[in-house]
Amino acid sequence: MELILQPAKTTWHRLLQRPALDLADLTEKVKAVLEEVRLNGDAAVRKYALLFDRVELNTTEVQQQEIEAAEAIVSAELKAAINTAAKNITSFHSKQFYPVEVIETMPGVQCWRKSVGIEKVGLYIPGGTAPLFSTILMLGIPAKLAGCKEIILCSPPDKTGKLHPAILYAAQLVGATKIFKIGGVQAIAAMAYGTETISPVSKIFGPGNQYVTCAKQFIQQDGIAIDMPAGPSEVCVMADDSANPAFIAADLLSQAEHGADSQVLLVALSSELVNNVEEELNKQLELLPRKDLAGKALQNSKAIVVSNIDEAIELVNEYAAEHLIISCDGHEAIAERIVNAGSVFLGHYSPESVGDYASGTNHTLPTNGYARAYSGVSVDSFVKKITYQKLTEQGLQQIASTVELLAEAEGLQAHANAVRIRLK
Amino acid sequence: MELILQPAKTTWHRLLQRPALDLADLTEKVKAVLEEVRLNGDAAVRKYALLFDRVELNTTEVQQQEIEAAEAIVSAELKAAINTAAKNITSFHSKQFYPVEVIETMPGVQCWRKSVGIEKVGLYIPGGTAPLFSTILMLGIPAKLAGCKEIILCSPPDKTGKLHPAILYAAQLVGATKIFKIGGVQAIAAMAYGTETISPVSKIFGPGNQYVTCAKQFIQQDGIAIDMPAGPSEVCVMADDSANPAFIAADLLSQAEHGADSQVLLVALSSELVNNVEEELNKQLELLPRKDLAGKALQNSKAIVVSNIDEAIELVNEYAAEHLIISCDGHEAIAERIVNAGSVFLGHYSPESVGDYASGTNHTLPTNGYARAYSGVSVDSFVKKITYQKLTEQGLQQIASTVELLAEAEGLQAHANAVRIRLK
Repeated sequence: MELILQPAKTTWHRLLQRPALDLADLTEKVKAVLEEVRLNGDAAVRKYALLFDRVELNTTEVQQQEIEAAEAIVSAELKAAINTAAKNITSFHSKQFYPVEVIETMPGVQCWRKSVGIEKVGLYIPGGTAPLFSTILMLGIPAKLAGCKEIILCSPPDKTGKLHPAILYAAQLVGATKIFKIGGVQAIAAMAYGTETISPVSKIFGPGNQYVTCAKQFIQQDGIAIDMPAGPSEVCVMADDSANPAFIAADLLSQAEHGADSQVLLVALSSELVNNVEEELNKQLELLPRKDLAGKALQNSKAIVVSNIDEAIELVNEYAAEHLIISCDGHEAIAERIVNAGSVFLGHYSPESVGDYASGTNHTLPTNGYARAYSGVSVDSFVKKITYQKLTEQGLQQIASTVELLAEAEGLQAHANAVRIRLK
Repeated sequence: MELILQPAKTTWHRLLQRPALDLADLTEKVKAVLEEVRLNGDAAVRKYALLFDRVELNTTEVQQQEIEAAEAIVSAELKAAINTAAKNITSFHSKQFYPVEVIETMPGVQCWRKSVGIEKVGLYIPGGTAPLFSTILMLGIPAKLAGCKEIILCSPPDKTGKLHPAILYAAQLVGATKIFKIGGVQAIAAMAYGTETISPVSKIFGPGNQYVTCAKQFIQQDGIAIDMPAGPSEVCVMADDSANPAFIAADLLSQAEHGADSQVLLVALSSELVNNVEEELNKQLELLPRKDLAGKALQNSKAIVVSNIDEAIELVNEYAAEHLIISCDGHEAIAERIVNAGSVFLGHYSPESVGDYASGTNHTLPTNGYARAYSGVSVDSFVKKITYQKLTEQGLQQIASTVELLAEAEGLQAHANAVRIRLK
């Protein structure tokens, strides 16, 4: 880790910058695949499955017997763990509903707002080094709670044309309505535009590589909603001398092992702590199966020492981390002053990994500083909030002169007429 | 209006399609302006103000004395109307907060979610034919309620370098922190990237022409959030024989007068009703100052007659209107079955124009079928919802085996270690 001692505020902006994700060189390739799937549907999907995933499938939709077979393979222990995580995620997300409240803004003028599930959503689950069945829970559970009617899941098959059994187990557990063995840009295109076998969705969720990220940007331009912009995963650990260097090192490594581009930031109140964390990092890194990836990530990462807790809070708010771990005395009071973060982990016994899997909060969170304006995925992400108003004749009389005056001042006579004609 | 009698469902998709908004030919121009403002800041803003708005300003920021002068000009009646609208919008939006609820998903595992206002937001208010001070209320009031610290407002000045007094009155009423006389793409660029005089914002709201829409799409690619994708305003009126043809005609015209590209759709249960509405349209259109615009919009609009209310509901759900007026008996029961709409107006005394100005609901709504996945603007649009978790040592023990199993099954050893090392 690069050690930076008491940097001047003027340098913070540069220090906290993430590496720019340049998709420019991908755009032409991605556009071509999107366009071909839009025009040729399943044929194009099959073509690119063969080209990119080296697999040929007559049918991309997962069949019931495949799901049953997978259920038989997944160990009882793993099933129990998945079920426990699902239970906690369900408890937390099921509290994200609020009763419809009718508000009478004026006598006879009633207004209210109702959440309605987005009818058709698509979940993309990457394949590759790790089968991210936890992401299926994080997206599928709120989708189901929100009342989405169609929950389509796409994930790339392995060379033998199979999905990981835990992926299938989690998918049926959350109630995915259809599961397709399709990966990458062609999966995003198929869900966005539809094919002979896949009906188009209104919103697409899920992580992915740079190609998938680029594809989601394009389909967003076509009016299909996406969960949020994507970037490499990141953690910021804020630590005072009450922190345990071994715990911090373990947290930094659990982020670093995601990949060489993972962002890891330590904000400490003393350089002694940083040195102790460095020692622990070297010890723990050696024992990791993914130590090459983690090591690379650590090389690009920073440890910043600041003079006091106020400065630390200001710094982490400017950074706007996806995950923020507060390993400090008085973490509750500090948490109150955090204004930019995806998810916050308080105290010495709340490692990021509990939020990644099982505490109940969602792990689909804004990276790359997007936490300044974006929230993580929640039930809100799967609903629209429709507003309603109902006026009685008396209510309309109450509000009439206001609407007429405003409409005329904006030069919109017909808006005024729509009120007048009803009160003639 | 084009009359369509009982169309087959297979034709609905085509019938309900909106005209495609092609921004392709604008992109190069818009990109160039964005890039120049990003590089040259205020100088570029001044250059384009002169080029596009034909106005030269030494300082673009509105001064206190200009606001006071404007307040003196705005009539007492108009101020009262603006204040009444503001009061209703405030009553409705102030109910969009929910208490923080700590959920113990397992003994010793506490999770909660808190809404925090986006620190810096930008509001764009177009100039042109109508001074849209109502949009200032619709964006500024929830921004203030959400606790946004900086609320920057940009609007193009007239040839004399002034903003409409009602714009300034509304801006100070909602508590805009800074007001700038900047329009178009250069305003979006200035708020997104910042200049010597404008600090960059995290999210940009507000309507605009195709150039502004295109600019908002670009800055969204750079990670600055936007309120929602834009399209021409639209209304769908759903009417049975209990409806008053004169009321319906007035509602259709109040949408049509927005501009030639406004979308107007009538879904009726009988062709008699459509004919009577047509008659009323011709009568009322003649008396409108903006009858040319409204007339053009009506030429592109449709009246669809369906056989029964179920089909009508299915049709309007497929259309996903920005504004849906239900002029039918049993409108409450029908409203319960609406799943895609921006804002719904129930009964014969709830014209769209009350929602445009003063009922209390927000008028910044998803057009172009985006209501399938997007909500209108609300307090939610101005906050991030940050999640928190705090585990006790006992809580971590409770959840440890679950996290370790899941992490290992996903091949993420360091994630498991972060738990293990704390329980050694």
